[in-house]
Amino acid sequence: MAIEAVDTMGAAMRNHAGWGEVEGALSAAELETLTSLLEAALGGRPSYHHPVPLSSIEMPSSRLGRLPPALAGMVDGDTFSRALHSYGRSFPELVRARSGDFSDAVDGVLHPADETEVAEALDFAARAGAVVVPFGGGSSVVGGIGPLHRRDHPLVLALDTGRLDTVAELDPISQTARLGAGLLGPALEAALRPHGLTLRHFPQSFEFSSLGGWIATRSGGHFAVGTTHIEDFVSALTMVSPAGVLRTRPLPASGAGPALERILAGSEGAFGVITEATMKLAARPVYRASASVVFPSMAAALGALAELVRSRLNPANCRVLDESESLRSGLGAKVRMLVAFESPNTPVDALLSAALELLGAEGGIKEAEEGGGGRSGAADRWRSSFIRAPYFADAIVGMGLVVETFETSVSYAGFPELDEAARRAISRVERARGARGFVSCRVTHAYSDGLAPYYTVIASPGTADPLAFWAELKEAVTEAFVHHGGAVTHHHGVGRYHRPAFEESIGEAGRAALGALRRHFDPQGLMNPGVLLG
Amino acid sequence: MAIEAVDTMGAAMRNHAGWGEVEGALSAAELETLTSLLEAALGGRPSYHHPVPLSSIEMPSSRLGRLPPALAGMVDGDTFSRALHSYGRSFPELVRARSGDFSDAVDGVLHPADETEVAEALDFAARAGAVVVPFGGGSSVVGGIGPLHRRDHPLVLALDTGRLDTVAELDPISQTARLGAGLLGPALEAALRPHGLTLRHFPQSFEFSSLGGWIATRSGGHFAVGTTHIEDFVSALTMVSPAGVLRTRPLPASGAGPALERILAGSEGAFGVITEATMKLAARPVYRASASVVFPSMAAALGALAELVRSRLNPANCRVLDESESLRSGLGAKVRMLVAFESPNTPVDALLSAALELLGAEGGIKEAEEGGGGRSGAADRWRSSFIRAPYFADAIVGMGLVVETFETSVSYAGFPELDEAARRAISRVERARGARGFVSCRVTHAYSDGLAPYYTVIASPGTADPLAFWAELKEAVTEAFVHHGGAVTHHHGVGRYHRPAFEESIGEAGRAALGALRRHFDPQGLMNPGVLLG
Repeated sequence: MAIEAVDTMGAAMRNHAGWGEVEGALSAAELETLTSLLEAALGGRPSYHHPVPLSSIEMPSSRLGRLPPALAGMVDGDTFSRALHSYGRSFPELVRARSGDFSDAVDGVLHPADETEVAEALDFAARAGAVVVPFGGGSSVVGGIGPLHRRDHPLVLALDTGRLDTVAELDPISQTARLGAGLLGPALEAALRPHGLTLRHFPQSFEFSSLGGWIATRSGGHFAVGTTHIEDFVSALTMVSPAGVLRTRPLPASGAGPALERILAGSEGAFGVITEATMKLAARPVYRASASVVFPSMAAALGALAELVRSRLNPANCRVLDESESLRSGLGAKVRMLVAFESPNTPVDALLSAALELLGAEGGIKEAEEGGGGRSGAADRWRSSFIRAPYFADAIVGMGLVVETFETSVSYAGFPELDEAARRAISRVERARGARGFVSCRVTHAYSDGLAPYYTVIASPGTADPLAFWAELKEAVTEAFVHHGGAVTHHHGVGRYHRPAFEESIGEAGRAALGALRRHFDPQGLMNPGVLLG
Repeated sequence: MAIEAVDTMGAAMRNHAGWGEVEGALSAAELETLTSLLEAALGGRPSYHHPVPLSSIEMPSSRLGRLPPALAGMVDGDTFSRALHSYGRSFPELVRARSGDFSDAVDGVLHPADETEVAEALDFAARAGAVVVPFGGGSSVVGGIGPLHRRDHPLVLALDTGRLDTVAELDPISQTARLGAGLLGPALEAALRPHGLTLRHFPQSFEFSSLGGWIATRSGGHFAVGTTHIEDFVSALTMVSPAGVLRTRPLPASGAGPALERILAGSEGAFGVITEATMKLAARPVYRASASVVFPSMAAALGALAELVRSRLNPANCRVLDESESLRSGLGAKVRMLVAFESPNTPVDALLSAALELLGAEGGIKEAEEGGGGRSGAADRWRSSFIRAPYFADAIVGMGLVVETFETSVSYAGFPELDEAARRAISRVERARGARGFVSCRVTHAYSDGLAPYYTVIASPGTADPLAFWAELKEAVTEAFVHHGGAVTHHHGVGRYHRPAFEESIGEAGRAALGALRRHFDPQGLMNPGVLLG
């Protein structure tokens, strides 16, 4: 099994009620720092409560009966495994999991080891009337994993792709590999490293999300300029659905008909299970140069961002942090751009120089710069805070506070209006509930025509219960995005939480087209019901 | 009407039996040069025959009866218009059109001016049992336009999108525009130029192909590194199908569900009519630098190409010509790479220098270089030959010779085998028919994992009739591509000629998925029957 089903403190034990691994939780010192920071920002000293331990959880009995021999070896029904696979890592799921509420726990977890076993698992589900929730790393923050209502289905099974972890083919000349969809980020990179290759896809969930999950949700990478969504790096896909096995051919590019890979990317487990993918890789970077640049305002920074993205200098990364975001990342409270170049085979210092000249002409002032393969200190500090952020969010949930991130994409022209609408929506909900909170914004991705703003909100829920407050906030901000030219989601996916906005945004004809595809792949409606379409 | 329906020599009169405009045909001097060149290469002096003039064409009567009032104003039934819209510009279609064979002529041509009129046209077709062939610029070389067998359908209508030519919205800050799908290349660029913007999409058919046609066939641009297929520049699409109007929202990027725009891109008129698209534009380049670099062998050039594409220096263009292709383009008979950089807002000479250093390390020797906004002479010569090539092909057809281009994409590792297989297939067909021909190859597009080779074959058909020879050649080369790791097509599309190979390459599950989509959008099967799927 790819995930340790052992309820003891182990080196790699996943947290059944929180982000990542148990050992990743905040140290006492980190918790103290966070508590003081939140006290200063929100008033009142929050206190942290541990989640209900696994041993105290009451879980409904599994409804899995006698299994056919083909399945017996791949099903897991212990409490830890059921708990871990019942929830994603969204705020409401964390609240429920921490409180020990596993009343909607899955009945069992399937661990197929290959395509044939996935097909057997889906056959069994079809016969048993079970619904199947594909589970990669379980990091969904949009209700892509849970919760399903147990009472709505005779049997609810998670299908963990963790054993689909082979590196079947690796072509060092073409820099591609056929990879099992269940590979989590670290294992995937570890398999490529000896060949000097990398997928270069580092979402914040990297450690606890899978290749198949990235493709099924159109994940956005950490390398944030232009080509960053995982589907842009897919050369071929295999998906096992109730309708059969769809396998596409690996090609550098094609102009032949609608791209089948693009039909499957973003299907969020509702069409079938992505079992493997041939991915376009890159040689590991040798040359690096980066800098942080301070701007007098967000408007100036975003104008400069557009110029840089359009310059064809092709930075590997370019993020803009607002003052609050800079502060939260341990940098001074200024609007800041972190820009980085890298290459496997050519020096990039001249590229950074050209970029800095361009940014200077737009009002940017260089704060720090590092070339010759290094990274700027600001970039490093930001990166370490980025990777640890979900553990901090966990602790904030444990303090009875609300924490959520809201992401979208919008044109450059449309950003000011969308930004104002989103902030107004947040204030409105907070005011109505007598809540105190703060909001920060960074631009996570940039394109020639627009950008992806990403808001973090941390709040005391005031008079509301945290779950109700979260739901009001989520609805208000999502509506602000969609009604002011923004995407329903830039890279978190649709899941169950964004479904109403998604359905509205694609209109009746869009729903009908996706519905036709869904019915084609899954005529009985077994696959992850409730995501994408109602 | 967007296309002049006047059968007199006019400034912009389209050629009913050949490429482009009548006035674009080869001059006497060009014809003489071509004849001598072909004589030297193939033996025997070919002589050129003019196509059967329009006035001598016998065309079956139109089966269009009395039209409903809503349609009366948008239908065209004169001989010129029917002739022009009955064929694309593939070799067999040119042969038939030149010979005056319009026995399968369309019954009429619809010229809807907006979305509502497109819907009315499709409604009429549904009631009349007509089939509808969407027609942008009519440049398909894969049987995407014709020929339909008249006897198989009670009524065959072309739907010319030429009047869908509005520039509805132009956002200079975000650099996007909502554009009518019927805009041909030159009109589209002319509309953007006053705003300092460009779509930067220059396929060889640029003058006689439309935005909607590009999207429907996943056209590949002239800017040939990485992001080059038109669908990568689509922000939103509207398609009118028999099932209704599907309209997506313009967004810089999205992670919400399967991308509807990608389902429509490549649909080749078989799902409906693309009526408009919001496109990602670019500021017009100000800084340019380019060079031509000579390599000792194709293998060396392709190794260097891979390094350059992966360097992140982001050249705007990078083409490799083999010795024959160099010669045909008026350059010396050497393996040659043409590399170009450009930017709207930052000097690019340093980028070119870095590229030349990289290419030098791979065995490349710089032949010529031009910076500071200019282009290299080699690039200019190559470009002018590129744009004129279809007129030369026309003349070759008029000489009773066979001319065809074969394009695919393949991994770097797979190229040598595919190249050998393709050349062997060509030789085999030529030998079997006692034919003489020559083949040249250029690499039109390059990716991190592979490249798009493009072969031009010109041959005297030997003992075979030109059409039979062409069919044998087409089948043999397509099979060589698909059975040696290549794409069915990189940017010419599927149409009717590539359909068997396409159906084979996507397998039963792929055919079923696309079939489900087609049935959803067009349950009666009105739309461009015979393309993509049988």
